[in-house]
Amino acid sequence: MPRVPVPPEVDEFLARPNPAVVGTIRRDGSPHTAATWYDWEDGRVLLNMDASRLRLGYLRRDPRASLTVLDGDSWYRQITLLGRVTSIEDDPALADIDRLALRYTGKPYRDRSRNSVSAWLEPAQWYGWAGGRHVTR
Amino acid sequence: MPRVPVPPEVDEFLARPNPAVVGTIRRDGSPHTAATWYDWEDGRVLLNMDASRLRLGYLRRDPRASLTVLDGDSWYRQITLLGRVTSIEDDPALADIDRLALRYTGKPYRDRSRNSVSAWLEPAQWYGWAGGRHVTR
Repeated sequence: MPRVPVPPEVDEFLARPNPAVVGTIRRDGSPHTAATWYDWEDGRVLLNMDASRLRLGYLRRDPRASLTVLDGDSWYRQITLLGRVTSIEDDPALADIDRLALRYTGKPYRDRSRNSVSAWLEPAQWYGWAGGRHVTR
Repeated sequence: MPRVPVPPEVDEFLARPNPAVVGTIRRDGSPHTAATWYDWEDGRVLLNMDASRLRLGYLRRDPRASLTVLDGDSWYRQITLLGRVTSIEDDPALADIDRLALRYTGKPYRDRSRNSVSAWLEPAQWYGWAGGRHVTR
């Protein structure tokens, strides 16, 4: 599936360090959700997790994922990206987790022993609300 | 599956009007996530949505769901409840959506023409972080 383009206001919203939750599929087909940091780059989402996280196994088995990004300041703004993870790679130098930690906290990631793994999510669909208006594509 | 008990600090956290995201399963088995209000009562989660919401159809087809509750004040606190929806009922008097709107905004729900539907989620498992500590059950 080709990556879906988003309008400029959605692009701008996703570029901010917002709270987010990623949904994946467990082995039994049931949904799993988890809070996550993310970054937004050229229409793709960078996720990073410790190698011990259950959702990493879920994504290796079924790469389909959903990310809901909240606006920390407003209940009436959210964007959800539906798509699949197209790349899962180790992050041995902690470059990606540092990138996310800097984005969210202003400091490098504090646990330098982390077994850091990065995943890139490519959205195929999105929907959301902005200012109480339901928008979709 | 029996409803899982949670410790007092998790119970207390869930009782607050926190931001939350609910995960469901689409017809093709892929995950869907959406921002949601919720209430927590006797170990069950009240969700409410407009009848037009896609996730209502997903839940009628497959009642398994996951709810990640964030702490609006802290990145290092989240609780995720995994379980299933055991009841889906119309809310014609808007009693449940008013209950949620009052909890989150202090006012009744403003759109009185809403086709309001309530769902109760019974958690079978939970996991979370509190203060950087990973806790699970």
